[in-house]
Amino acid sequence: MLYDIIILGAGTAGISAYKEAIKYTQNILVINEGPWDTTCARVGCMPSKVLISSANRLYDAQHLDQVGIEAKIVADTSQIMQHIQQLRDRFSAATLKDVAKWPQEHKINGKAHFVNANTVEVNGQQYQAKSFILAVGSKPNINLEWQTHIGNKQLSSDQIFELEQLPKSIAVIGSGVISIELAQAFHRLGVTTTIFARSKKVGSLSSPYLQELAQNQLKKELNILFETLPDQVSLQDNQVKIDYTVNGKTESIYVDYLLNATGRTSLLSTLQLQNIHPEFQQIKSLPIHPDTKQLADYPIFVAGDAFSATPIQHEAAHEGRMAVHNCLNYPQISSIKTRPALGIMFSSPEMATAGSSHQHLTEQKIDFVTGQSSFERQGRAIVLGKNMGAIEVYIAKDSRQLLGAEFFVESAEHMVHLLNWMIDEGCTIDEILSKPFYHPTLEEGLRSAFKNAKIKLDQ
Amino acid sequence: MLYDIIILGAGTAGISAYKEAIKYTQNILVINEGPWDTTCARVGCMPSKVLISSANRLYDAQHLDQVGIEAKIVADTSQIMQHIQQLRDRFSAATLKDVAKWPQEHKINGKAHFVNANTVEVNGQQYQAKSFILAVGSKPNINLEWQTHIGNKQLSSDQIFELEQLPKSIAVIGSGVISIELAQAFHRLGVTTTIFARSKKVGSLSSPYLQELAQNQLKKELNILFETLPDQVSLQDNQVKIDYTVNGKTESIYVDYLLNATGRTSLLSTLQLQNIHPEFQQIKSLPIHPDTKQLADYPIFVAGDAFSATPIQHEAAHEGRMAVHNCLNYPQISSIKTRPALGIMFSSPEMATAGSSHQHLTEQKIDFVTGQSSFERQGRAIVLGKNMGAIEVYIAKDSRQLLGAEFFVESAEHMVHLLNWMIDEGCTIDEILSKPFYHPTLEEGLRSAFKNAKIKLDQ
Repeated sequence: MLYDIIILGAGTAGISAYKEAIKYTQNILVINEGPWDTTCARVGCMPSKVLISSANRLYDAQHLDQVGIEAKIVADTSQIMQHIQQLRDRFSAATLKDVAKWPQEHKINGKAHFVNANTVEVNGQQYQAKSFILAVGSKPNINLEWQTHIGNKQLSSDQIFELEQLPKSIAVIGSGVISIELAQAFHRLGVTTTIFARSKKVGSLSSPYLQELAQNQLKKELNILFETLPDQVSLQDNQVKIDYTVNGKTESIYVDYLLNATGRTSLLSTLQLQNIHPEFQQIKSLPIHPDTKQLADYPIFVAGDAFSATPIQHEAAHEGRMAVHNCLNYPQISSIKTRPALGIMFSSPEMATAGSSHQHLTEQKIDFVTGQSSFERQGRAIVLGKNMGAIEVYIAKDSRQLLGAEFFVESAEHMVHLLNWMIDEGCTIDEILSKPFYHPTLEEGLRSAFKNAKIKLDQ
Repeated sequence: MLYDIIILGAGTAGISAYKEAIKYTQNILVINEGPWDTTCARVGCMPSKVLISSANRLYDAQHLDQVGIEAKIVADTSQIMQHIQQLRDRFSAATLKDVAKWPQEHKINGKAHFVNANTVEVNGQQYQAKSFILAVGSKPNINLEWQTHIGNKQLSSDQIFELEQLPKSIAVIGSGVISIELAQAFHRLGVTTTIFARSKKVGSLSSPYLQELAQNQLKKELNILFETLPDQVSLQDNQVKIDYTVNGKTESIYVDYLLNATGRTSLLSTLQLQNIHPEFQQIKSLPIHPDTKQLADYPIFVAGDAFSATPIQHEAAHEGRMAVHNCLNYPQISSIKTRPALGIMFSSPEMATAGSSHQHLTEQKIDFVTGQSSFERQGRAIVLGKNMGAIEVYIAKDSRQLLGAEFFVESAEHMVHLLNWMIDEGCTIDEILSKPFYHPTLEEGLRSAFKNAKIKLDQ
């Protein structure tokens, strides 16, 4: 039996691929190891957003003076982890229920590896297909040396949501998207939180101006040790002792847990791709095309976190869908990178990027102007007691089109959709400035940024 | 001396008109009676949004159980009115500072009236112009009979923000935009609030489904007496006694103040327009063109709240700007209604309308389908503890273009911009469904509505 497509992995990308493929063929197989729900619902977007949402509500309640109210609040956060787990289970159940409806003959549970370019083996059985979608995802990095010293006191984002209680104290390693999101949320929930950051960069912003603004804002609230990593970790009285160096002097802290949020590793390594071609030994140097995600010239396509700079759910789902068409139309292959980028980091204020980042435009030597707008005196932001941060919009000098934007403001999750869709429409700055901006809204702050860019353009 | 344009009124529309006109001519005059700031900054959008923002933050703090936290909170709201007044003064000062920079010879303070079609008189002096912009705004309605009984215990939205303390109790007359916004805010700040509503309609929504949802949701929180108005009001022991009838029986309540929010009346009546033409006696039957806002065929244009179904700041500013071009190009006149509608009501959840309302499409017999999406089980809304309400999108059957949308959900103020701009771009449902929707965001709830519409379209 020769399948039209075998999909390896049943996370966001794999499920999305299956749902698209089933519209065209019944001759498909999904092989998955472990739970048949998604990283997103089980250990990713959803539980982290529940944690963050609770933390921000508590923070806002504790800072009613921002809106002219003095208040005393006594909060009991002992049920937070149960709240997170309940909602997570609810979201996971929705996915599992969906997958349960698929015909049994389309699903195999087990760990697959390639035997050759059109054969995989799972549970001792071999299966052949005309094409493959590799949607095996990724797993969070763990420091193996630390593990020998502190064992399961080192947590990844896979384990953190399993805790029965909020810890009293935690050290977070990393200052990327996941680290800052989780560290800020734990801090706001009353957990004594220390962040160790290799560099000074926080989160996802590439604009030097916004990056500096974000560093200054976040270090006001959080205890971030920039350019500092643990020298060594050890276990003392059931606590993690972390030694690190500041100004040439060794300091130590004791924490309940160490959360390692230093990135994720692709699970492509589990697939024994070297059986397809001996040169496919090293995952990092795999010849995967950036636009089509095709593996060399095989009818094999990667989708989702298994090969991605940033794990983003809607990208994974999109790639899963698009990979199906490249499988079915093979050898006719199209680019799957058809939409402008859209990234959100749920820090407070939120960081977000629409379209091309400042870094990308600069590196590509695109001729653009930057429109900036601070939200410190933005009307609606003052009214909300959230007047901090800023945004930047990037406009092409020749076409006057909006190319990209970066945000470090309240409600960026909404405004980034607005500008992403405008980029997708190919709108110019003049078209955008002619649109309605309701008063008083944060969107008027966007208009200020466009007006700032227009002055520079018209000089 | 013959001015190019005389602008009557220096509110949002008048100021916007002046700023546009000054780009083309110095030969302009603004005549204004009373304060030279705007209804919006002094007694409208801004102070009401400060009140609402504080009220919602307090409500959210008192309902931390929505996000898994038990808390006790003791809040002191005694400084709320000062907080509102401080921010209001800050916003007004910004406008006044701007106006102060205008040349003195462009400004006259006083009450103007027309002498004939090209002459106005103010402070006993006559001024002539080639064209006029009537931007005199409106004032809130007051019940004159009630005034004889309870005097200044009847407040309008002009007076409510002048109170030194939150009242203990208040009756709000009306269930339109301003009434519901203010009543809900007072209620959330601990003021015992009773709403008297002539009909069952609440706020701004025209969709029968969303209107019913909003009525049910708001009456859970607020004490709304639907289809009930006061029979009589009187003063007893410095309190307002309100008698009203329920099921044929007279009931009474006692409140500190009665807030009359039953609409606004145009100030065009102050201009003695009958001196232009004897038929211009009745404001309600003035021949003002709905698209150009021209008064009959005179070079006279109305802008802003002076002639508007809904007082909306960005519309007033837009009309002020556009009127200038119709003045300068007279007799060549263009429509000023060039952009899809955008309305937001800052209730909780928020109500909003983009483009054509359900009512408008139905009345115009447009062939459209409605896509609905409830937010009661929407992922991001659950995470935020704000899973209530719904949205509707309206799609043209022939062109598949998005025509309009109505919202009754959290953060509608943002999503209504997104759909308004898509309507302005002329996007079809298929184009919109191809755009990125970040996970997990409320915008995914929009996608659900579009998917629902697509199923109906493709039937």
